[in-house]
Amino acid sequence: MTERAKFVVLDGIDGCGKTTQAERLVQALASETGGEVLHLREPGSTREGEAIRAILLERDHVLSAGVETLLFTAARRQMLERLVVPALQRGAYVVCERFHPSTYAYQAHAGGLDADEVLALLTGWAGDPEPDLVVLLDVPVSRALERRGAPTDRIEDRGAAFQERVAAGMADYAERMERVVRVDGVGDPDEVAARVMSEVRRVL
Amino acid sequence: MTERAKFVVLDGIDGCGKTTQAERLVQALASETGGEVLHLREPGSTREGEAIRAILLERDHVLSAGVETLLFTAARRQMLERLVVPALQRGAYVVCERFHPSTYAYQAHAGGLDADEVLALLTGWAGDPEPDLVVLLDVPVSRALERRGAPTDRIEDRGAAFQERVAAGMADYAERMERVVRVDGVGDPDEVAARVMSEVRRVL
Repeated sequence: MTERAKFVVLDGIDGCGKTTQAERLVQALASETGGEVLHLREPGSTREGEAIRAILLERDHVLSAGVETLLFTAARRQMLERLVVPALQRGAYVVCERFHPSTYAYQAHAGGLDADEVLALLTGWAGDPEPDLVVLLDVPVSRALERRGAPTDRIEDRGAAFQERVAAGMADYAERMERVVRVDGVGDPDEVAARVMSEVRRVL
Repeated sequence: MTERAKFVVLDGIDGCGKTTQAERLVQALASETGGEVLHLREPGSTREGEAIRAILLERDHVLSAGVETLLFTAARRQMLERLVVPALQRGAYVVCERFHPSTYAYQAHAGGLDADEVLALLTGWAGDPEPDLVVLLDVPVSRALERRGAPTDRIEDRGAAFQERVAAGMADYAERMERVVRVDGVGDPDEVAARVMSEVRRVL
């Protein structure tokens, strides 16, 4: 195990089990490292980021994929500057639900924006620090939507066809980017957690 | 006078008289063209943009120049997509208070961000349509702060030294960009309005 704490992202389509697995990963990392583990979610985690989240999810709002991308990037930069950088500096591990893969999959791949322009924005304006590992939880769309239940916000309101494009975007992100692994998210949560932890252990 | 309606921006430091002059310009354009003139302000003008504005101005919020820039760009793109494009399409003129010069001056020049990176963001993500004319109202900082009065939000809370850097950033923007004119904003509002209108008339 190296000295420096690590920044791990869990991402995937709606209902893939991110929150469940993030909670387990936080516990596993805490018991394995004996140190502090910070659990973050995107967009949000800071007071200002939660206000941005509220704008994004409000059902009465009309926002294009481009405006969404800028708002997600703003919330991400805020979280990096205010929470992730200080956490890593004090030696805390960071587990974050959602990050660049979601923006790439929802706003570029499914939302119709140019993928390279979105990546340039994300790396230029919310690229520091980079995650040490990005874990994408693979779950079939039909099963994920069943797990998620009825939609509760503006972005969840999009249907199954949109979620299929999101899933394809996640797979595309994994192919073109480094430090990204896909993990089978189907099955008993303990088994999935073991798969996630075995990937995370490689970067500890 | 050409067929197409025009998009005119009024910008300048806090207290330079933007709102007063925008109101006069709207009236002058309406009487001169006989058509609709839309008066917008930044950040805001749309419901979603006003929610972004509230995040930016809230005194309890802590936001870096980078996060501010992303939020201003999001609000600007929203306004362009939802209000400016439809207005120009239906033949309406648009007068907008604040635009790229403010982001360049406040967040890059006074806020310490790289000017070229900020310009690339603005033109890439909030660059369509471009204004036909940008009028910068020139008023000495001491006089502008006197006119503005006590600060009422997070950004106005910054002092006179900050405003001097903003003023220098506005001047720099005028030097490097096209379709930007500086107009003397000191004097009787009617006289200033006449100076503004004589510049605007050149692009009608």
